[in-house]
Amino acid sequence: MTLEILAMNRFDPARAAAVDAETKALLDRRARTFGPASVLFYERPVHMVSAEGVFMQAADGTRYLDVYNNVPSVGHCHPKVVEAMARQAAVLNIHTRYLYDNVHTYAERLLAKLPESLAHLMLTCTGTESNDLALRLATNWTGGEGFVVTETAYHGNSAAVTAISPSSMPGRTLPAHVRAIPAPDAYRRPTNDLSADFAADLDRAIHELKTSGAGFAGFVADSIFSSDGIYADPPGFMQDAIEVVHRHGGLFIADEVQPGFGRTGDGFWGFERHGVVPDIVTMGKPMGNGYPMGGVAVRADVLQSFCDAVGYFNTFGGSPVAAAAGLAVLDAIEDEGLMENAKEVGTYLMGRLRDLARLRPSIGDVRGAGLFVGLEFVSEPEARTPDAALARRAINGLRDRGILIGAAGPFGNTLKIRPPLPFSRENADFFVDALDDFLASEPA
Amino acid sequence: MTLEILAMNRFDPARAAAVDAETKALLDRRARTFGPASVLFYERPVHMVSAEGVFMQAADGTRYLDVYNNVPSVGHCHPKVVEAMARQAAVLNIHTRYLYDNVHTYAERLLAKLPESLAHLMLTCTGTESNDLALRLATNWTGGEGFVVTETAYHGNSAAVTAISPSSMPGRTLPAHVRAIPAPDAYRRPTNDLSADFAADLDRAIHELKTSGAGFAGFVADSIFSSDGIYADPPGFMQDAIEVVHRHGGLFIADEVQPGFGRTGDGFWGFERHGVVPDIVTMGKPMGNGYPMGGVAVRADVLQSFCDAVGYFNTFGGSPVAAAAGLAVLDAIEDEGLMENAKEVGTYLMGRLRDLARLRPSIGDVRGAGLFVGLEFVSEPEARTPDAALARRAINGLRDRGILIGAAGPFGNTLKIRPPLPFSRENADFFVDALDDFLASEPA
Repeated sequence: MTLEILAMNRFDPARAAAVDAETKALLDRRARTFGPASVLFYERPVHMVSAEGVFMQAADGTRYLDVYNNVPSVGHCHPKVVEAMARQAAVLNIHTRYLYDNVHTYAERLLAKLPESLAHLMLTCTGTESNDLALRLATNWTGGEGFVVTETAYHGNSAAVTAISPSSMPGRTLPAHVRAIPAPDAYRRPTNDLSADFAADLDRAIHELKTSGAGFAGFVADSIFSSDGIYADPPGFMQDAIEVVHRHGGLFIADEVQPGFGRTGDGFWGFERHGVVPDIVTMGKPMGNGYPMGGVAVRADVLQSFCDAVGYFNTFGGSPVAAAAGLAVLDAIEDEGLMENAKEVGTYLMGRLRDLARLRPSIGDVRGAGLFVGLEFVSEPEARTPDAALARRAINGLRDRGILIGAAGPFGNTLKIRPPLPFSRENADFFVDALDDFLASEPA
Repeated sequence: MTLEILAMNRFDPARAAAVDAETKALLDRRARTFGPASVLFYERPVHMVSAEGVFMQAADGTRYLDVYNNVPSVGHCHPKVVEAMARQAAVLNIHTRYLYDNVHTYAERLLAKLPESLAHLMLTCTGTESNDLALRLATNWTGGEGFVVTETAYHGNSAAVTAISPSSMPGRTLPAHVRAIPAPDAYRRPTNDLSADFAADLDRAIHELKTSGAGFAGFVADSIFSSDGIYADPPGFMQDAIEVVHRHGGLFIADEVQPGFGRTGDGFWGFERHGVVPDIVTMGKPMGNGYPMGGVAVRADVLQSFCDAVGYFNTFGGSPVAAAAGLAVLDAIEDEGLMENAKEVGTYLMGRLRDLARLRPSIGDVRGAGLFVGLEFVSEPEARTPDAALARRAINGLRDRGILIGAAGPFGNTLKIRPPLPFSRENADFFVDALDDFLASEPA
């Protein structure tokens, strides 16, 4: 299980006595049906009954501000997305081996947002399926088996994708065909040239893969480095690394499951912030605002080679209902100016958090882009000692103040601030004020 | 690409001139957006605009009887499934790390239909994700890496699942950890004891895996042997094989993506026909009648071991919307007697097809269970020579007669008759009469 999740305070059944009778009954049913695979947020799990925009409603009447969930990216239960999905599901819901038009309208709209070299779109159901397919495309194209990722990366849950997700195997040795390099963390590894350092780490890892006989297929990175702890700056720091990837004959797979669809505010895709052009772009979570859909945009030559050798078909991927949901999401992002909102409110939010950091030495760093912000708690400001216990208390303390949030990073000490995109200045103020109130409640 | 799909007559762009201008324009858009990954049914692809029950409506006004699609298992665009999905999507659509109740209602309903030893349910988005997870559960439990499948098996499209899907790699060597055994084909391999023969093949394959050092993790089989060519009889013929699996310390993974959810008529699951108890059951396609959902039912001890070692979380899997869709599908199957209908209409259909086979020597065999029927075309009835060309002509000839159908099996000569479950006797008559008419049109 990822560190991110562990850091969220896994529910301890021994504490079930602390919850009300209705929640207790639901927990019992959950234990019987899901068994040990049940992973819940919070010491006292939240029983949800509804959600709208940036708010979620619990069974006990509490309304929470959602500062965590990026799947309902254009807002929980966005009425136009729900309507588009429902209308299409009532008319036609079938696979892509028949012709219908809205899936091509969708693909055209999405491809128009991507670099021209990413000529084609393959549609899947999840970010995991997208990354799994990307690995297959890259190994087929390069003939290599080796991949480089960052040290706390998470890219999904299939067998092949778990193998390139070090955060899913804490403390365990990575498979022989995978190398992990440090995240581009200028806070803990001060540097004069982050781009050169990051590229040098990558170059070394690729040499190791080549020497080992695994060969080099590609570098997989989420350009906001979400599970590593959120690293966005300086813009462009990925450029040297991507040059290294290409010099070694590998592919750069940009995992846009986290930064894509306008979240970083500077562009529709996270990689745009770095002025790099991926060979493959993978998509998931926010694509359908909760409707299960994912996608892979890929160079024409890479796809042609794969189709000549193998081919691919996904039963549910690119159904008319998925296309309708995806189109409604694009409409919402454009019509409601959500990317611009992410930029504007994100900047405002980071400003307020940095103001707070000046008053609260336990906030070691505030960083990010748009509405993807990391806030790192430290116990020794000079030594920058990670304070995961404070992050855990903050997650529960904010929950008591009507806010849902989580943590990320190798130490679990970084608050991951990643709300639905319609997040407003007022929402930001409510969150920062609550965080301030929580920190004031902590013993000095 | 699977043989099944190849057998469906991949669309040849050179023939695009044969289609009308509107279809031509759509094909051009498809070529630009999907590129070479576009795989279409039929020499002249069908442009679909709507579907209802067992019928699909094309843009040119043709109404087709659907004898192919098993995803819309309770009928295309079933109004109660659409309504349940839409209603829930408007209220709450979130992941399982918060509590909500309908996913447990769903899990309870589904687990009640399974053997008691399959204690827990994990929810995914696709059959591929389910089978990928099943492989991980089995390797973790057994410590072995090796799997046995049938020679033309198809289990999904991830890297790990493609490796156990020989039909995705025609003519290519299987990976070292995979062994394929012949399908339980009593038509082409006459036997006095199919159960013993099948078990002996499996035993041999397991010994090979153990000798090779890969070890043995499990046997993965779809109990209707869909892509192998559809083999259902005699009931119980899998029993000896499953005993062999367990004697060798492996797990039996029943892939119920094809036979599950009432299709075979004799039970809710295909494996029930054989009186065997799987260690893991995987589900996909029909589960949400088109809403992307899949599932894995698993023994408590196997799951506990996996969660202790790794754990699993699926973002979209088990969302309230998936649960609502899944519940509506279960309601439809039960309230509308669809399993009983599959039994009754399937028996009637097979009777009529067998009557036809007595008059048409090109029909070599008719077999199956419920509404999953295979009809094998042969050019030399005595020699049972597979006639894939006739199957291709039949697929196109039936399309001209308002029927959608496909083919399966290693030779692509077996019509795969697998309609939505509300298929009626009248639908069966229409289909058999059209098939008769097509065969009458063939030169003798």
